[in-house]
Amino acid sequence: MSLLVTGSIGIDTVKTPYGVSENCLGGSAVYFSMAASFFSPVRLLGVVGSDCPFDLAEVFADRSVDLTGLEVRAQSKTFRWTGTYGDNMNDRRTDCLELNVLAEAPPSVPSEYKDSEFVFLANTAPVLQLELLEQIKDPVFVAADTMDCWIDSQLDDLKGLLKRIDCLIINEDEARMLAAENNLIESTEKILGMGPSVVIIKKGESGSIMCNADGERFILPSFPVADVKDPTGAGDSFAGGLMGYLAQVGRVDFASLKQAIAYGTVVASFAIADFSLDRLASINKTDIDSRFETLRKLTGF
Amino acid sequence: MSLLVTGSIGIDTVKTPYGVSENCLGGSAVYFSMAASFFSPVRLLGVVGSDCPFDLAEVFADRSVDLTGLEVRAQSKTFRWTGTYGDNMNDRRTDCLELNVLAEAPPSVPSEYKDSEFVFLANTAPVLQLELLEQIKDPVFVAADTMDCWIDSQLDDLKGLLKRIDCLIINEDEARMLAAENNLIESTEKILGMGPSVVIIKKGESGSIMCNADGERFILPSFPVADVKDPTGAGDSFAGGLMGYLAQVGRVDFASLKQAIAYGTVVASFAIADFSLDRLASINKTDIDSRFETLRKLTGF
Repeated sequence: MSLLVTGSIGIDTVKTPYGVSENCLGGSAVYFSMAASFFSPVRLLGVVGSDCPFDLAEVFADRSVDLTGLEVRAQSKTFRWTGTYGDNMNDRRTDCLELNVLAEAPPSVPSEYKDSEFVFLANTAPVLQLELLEQIKDPVFVAADTMDCWIDSQLDDLKGLLKRIDCLIINEDEARMLAAENNLIESTEKILGMGPSVVIIKKGESGSIMCNADGERFILPSFPVADVKDPTGAGDSFAGGLMGYLAQVGRVDFASLKQAIAYGTVVASFAIADFSLDRLASINKTDIDSRFETLRKLTGF
Repeated sequence: MSLLVTGSIGIDTVKTPYGVSENCLGGSAVYFSMAASFFSPVRLLGVVGSDCPFDLAEVFADRSVDLTGLEVRAQSKTFRWTGTYGDNMNDRRTDCLELNVLAEAPPSVPSEYKDSEFVFLANTAPVLQLELLEQIKDPVFVAADTMDCWIDSQLDDLKGLLKRIDCLIINEDEARMLAAENNLIESTEKILGMGPSVVIIKKGESGSIMCNADGERFILPSFPVADVKDPTGAGDSFAGGLMGYLAQVGRVDFASLKQAIAYGTVVASFAIADFSLDRLASINKTDIDSRFETLRKLTGF
């Protein structure tokens, strides 16, 4: 089934204890698309400025990523993010953020994308997420991400969005913040009460938790990797693997969602093994399937 | 098979966002024994002062906990700990620590205990753990816990202990500290190189990881509980369920260790649902088996 992602395309500069990657390709829509493309064709919707040094057609060559929705604005500058990770890789500091084109009007959805069945709204202002979603005719399954600044400053808009989506994929601290509740399980229940029928909590190195409105739950650890070089894009790669798998199988029952989370976990574990998209670009579906089976073996008892 | 635990018996005062429990029963050997007794008879080795207000024979009535090794020292005072948990229950502050009898000579192992096959050395100075272990004739499987202060101040003694035990059960931060390595998977490999054939990392709310010298690994999330009232004793209850199950089945192959970790996880999830031993004392083996099956269902895909 068709899969649309809307999110950022960025120029990242990332410092980790393993090195520095300057002006490399990043952004939620880019990580998501690369991750999802192992499973399903992807329709990318995003905007860059004329200064964008990356040729996305080349980046996604030999992958089924539709760039009809990629807009290049001649008078604008591309989104830039500079960040530093601490020794344990869980502490991330934003050193510099230039929204640039992301602070302008969002791209409009091309007519070819309007029949998209699976939709992922990567993190941005909830009012923009809603505006984009309203351009999709009759989506089957809509998932969204959000972050602390929107919970803090645009909670009403975010609550409006939550009534319109099927699945919220969110970090654990942000889940606690959104629910105003310290216990993560209680937080998830509260967020389910705000609208989505599925809530997926990302816990970084500690894996993820999924709960649905029928009271079903699933918990999965992250895939253990010794070679974490750059955690940037882990969450969007997770979402990409997850939504890509769902679009591939065309089902959203709980058993399929569990498999989807496991695939998302595996794809994220590759994404963090090198800077930017370097590792994701070098693996194939066989690598993913093999690690999926390893994850099943690692967690079964 | 026979199971021996040596550790503390304490008078705890615990403050959590859910209330205060003053002068309640605590201590590693107590939590461990209660947890292990669901699976196997336990031999408790520990020492209290004459001020100890608890009748352990009554506490363990109807449970197979051998108190031959319980020593009451007329001239000594019982170990006391006072601590406070923050809102998210992961931040624990020690407000007051009175080692009292724990700063004296350790209890000696009664002759009836010397043939113990499974042994758990709860956290204390590694030189004392070694001294106790040397009194056991021919143990089959020895596990130990330790903590930051011993890694910091008695690293050589601890390394001596590690050469003599089969399994180290340790918190994640302490594992990183012991290995002088930030990545948890790398830390575990380094600790395996120090002697034990099995290393089990406790990650609190995020579950646990086990690695062995043959390169096998197992990862299990914690059991999700909305009603965490007091996390005190979670680690010792985990170890108790784990070692109790191993002593029950009399095997330490990797498949049995995986089941043992799952049982430890389940017992710990009950322990934290109320203050002191209140919840552990009110459940039965059927409750544990039922939650074990739920955990399997929650994590399988």
